[in-house]
Formats: sequence, C-alpha cells, structure tokens
Amino acid sequence: MTSQRRSKITPERELELYEAALDLLRESGYEALTMEGVAARSRCGKSTLYRQWGTKPQLVAAALRGTRCVKLADVDTGSLVGDLRAAARAAVAGAGRDTALMHALSHAAFQNPELLRALRENLIEPEVAAINAMVERAVTRGEIAADNPAAEFVAAQLMGVMRARPMVEGRQADEAYLHRFLEAAVFPALGLRATSRVTSHP
Amino acid sequence: MTSQRRSKITPERELELYEAALDLLRESGYEALTMEGVAARSRCGKSTLYRQWGTKPQLVAAALRGTRCVKLADVDTGSLVGDLRAAARAAVAGAGRDTALMHALSHAAFQNPELLRALRENLIEPEVAAINAMVERAVTRGEIAADNPAAEFVAAQLMGVMRARPMVEGRQADEAYLHRFLEAAVFPALGLRATSRVTSHP
Repeated sequence: MTSQRRSKITPERELELYEAALDLLRESGYEALTMEGVAARSRCGKSTLYRQWGTKPQLVAAALRGTRCVKLADVDTGSLVGDLRAAARAAVAGAGRDTALMHALSHAAFQNPELLRALRENLIEPEVAAINAMVERAVTRGEIAADNPAAEFVAAQLMGVMRARPMVEGRQADEAYLHRFLEAAVFPALGLRATSRVTSHP
Repeated sequence: MTSQRRSKITPERELELYEAALDLLRESGYEALTMEGVAARSRCGKSTLYRQWGTKPQLVAAALRGTRCVKLADVDTGSLVGDLRAAARAAVAGAGRDTALMHALSHAAFQNPELLRALRENLIEPEVAAINAMVERAVTRGEIAADNPAAEFVAAQLMGVMRARPMVEGRQADEAYLHRFLEAAVFPALGLRATSRVTSHP
C-alpha cells in the first residue's frame, strides 16, 4: 500500500522536492525548516509530503540520501582494492559537496534524537553495509580469508580517518590522503598487495 | 612574568578551581557558565581567574586538560606496541569519564570558534603530539623505519575509530575493541609483530 502511494511521485519530482528541502535547510537551518515551507517552495501539497516521508527528519534524511552522486552500494569493481578506492573517492565527493549543511545537521542531530536516527538509518548504515559487502565479496572471491582480523575494522577505519584528519592536522581528508591511507594502512593489514596504481585489468 | 603570576596558585588550588568549573558546566551547560559563577563557587577572586586563564574558553579547556587522569605525554613504556596499548587505555578512560559533558562541549564548540580553538590546542593537539612522539621514539629505537608509510596515520587512526565505532556499530569503542584494532590493523601495517599479550619484558 505504501509502495502504491509512493509510486504517485516520479523520480524527477522527488528530486525537485529534495532540492527544495535542502535549499531551505541551507538558507535557514534545521530548526526553521517546516513541511509547510518545503510544500510552498516545491509547489506540492503538504499532505503529499506527510504521506510520502512522514516527518521532517525523515524528509531531510531522504533528501540527503536521494541527492548523492555516487551510492556506495552501486560500487562493484571486481576487487577489494578497487572497491575501497572507489569508496574513498565517493566519501570525499559526498563530504565536500556541502560542508556547511553537514555541520548544521550534525549540530541539530545532537539535540534531536529522531533526526539522529533518521540520518543514521538513511546515510550511515547503508554506507557501512556497502563497505561490509565489499569485504564479503572479497572473501567469496578468495582475496582475503573469512577470518581476516582486519576485516572487522575497514568501515570504521575509513569513516574514522575522514573525521579525524581535520582534528589531527586541521585539514580535510582529500582523495590523495585517503588513497595514501588505504595503501599504507588498510591494504597491508588486510594482506592485500599495496600497489601504487590500479591497472586497467582487474 | 606570566609564570610568576601563575605560581601564586598552588596545584591543589588549581584543581579545586577546575572541579568547580566542570561542576558548573555539568549543571547548566557552557552558555550559562560565567567567570563570576566559577569565582563564586570556588571562593576565588574574579580577577585571579581572568589573570590566570584569560577567557572562559581557556578556563574550560584548561580544566578539562588539568583533570585528566593519564596524560599521554607521560606514557613511555619502552616499545611502540606498549605505548599504543597504553594510549588506547587512556583514550577509553578519558572518553568514558564524562560523556554528557563532552557532548555538551562538542555542541558548544560548533557555535563558538574560540572554544573550538581552545579545545584543539589544549586537548587534541597535545594528544596528537604525544602519539607522534611515540612513533618517533620507535624510529629512534629502530623498531620501525623512518619512512614507514603507515606512521603518518597512527594518530588519525586511533582518534578516528574511537569516534567512528558509535556511528558504525552503535556502541562506544571500549578497551577490548581498541586493543583488537591495534593488533589487527595498526601493528601489522607498521610491520610490528602482533602479539596477543604484552610480556613483562620489553
């Protein structure tokens, strides 16, 4: 039933609604955002918004997720080295696109448990699941052993250094930093050969 | 000159002032904290507070630093494996002692650049410097090569997984997790022998 209702909105229309919500977030912040405001900006009925997304935190999380350029779950290069390099590229692209917006939201999430849960479920958990799926595919292909002790930490390592570099060095983690990190720390711990470049063959 | 002025307060008195400031922070939060309030609570002249710490952010950062049980800069076990295990223990002890206080402060630091700078200078940068000093001592002792590519990432990795585990797994990084992480990821990447236990000999 929900899926039938959802099908009334086309993907293009959905993207317009998401962009309207994010524009309003950038302009006035999370507290000032209302479903009424998003409805007015996107010329959409308020009841449609509530039916489709339920609550403001759900709409915000869906808008952030739906406007991402690269979804980690779509990455499948055929090797763990290639997958993690692609994940590093996607992470930098995602984090860089809207620093002010993400800061405002981290801030709001401190005070709003429902927003925190919506962001976790819609943004963080799918990324963690996608990275863990990359590791599992590598086990299936025989690239790493199923009981490789470093496998447990790949997602936390990648997300961790992304957030820690600004604290440690006062600079954002860019793609070069993350690739250096993969080569120097993640691949050796997994027992993967650290090559300086990916070749065109898998 | 500054050091002469500072010497007027004994370490015991300093600790009392720090505890008074942290008590007030826990009770009413950062915004409501005033130098007047700390002076009244600790029965100390307001001018002494201003002379000694200058500003509220400086006082708060000094209070957090001065009441730490373990200072990473004091850790020197004779081996990088031992030093990093001790750092993991200290990190868990520090993070666990006052979760609500640290959350309130992270939140305030988002809005207050002066507080953010004071926390960075007094809490984060000394920890990063202490971890980097552990790595440098290991180079001097010949435990790792000076150009070991993983050495650059030790501080960011440790601080990163501390903050990433709650996001990734919904649980705090406890001592067992950090020790597993050191054994499985950090030591192998550095080329250090990952032993399950430290022996009594260095």
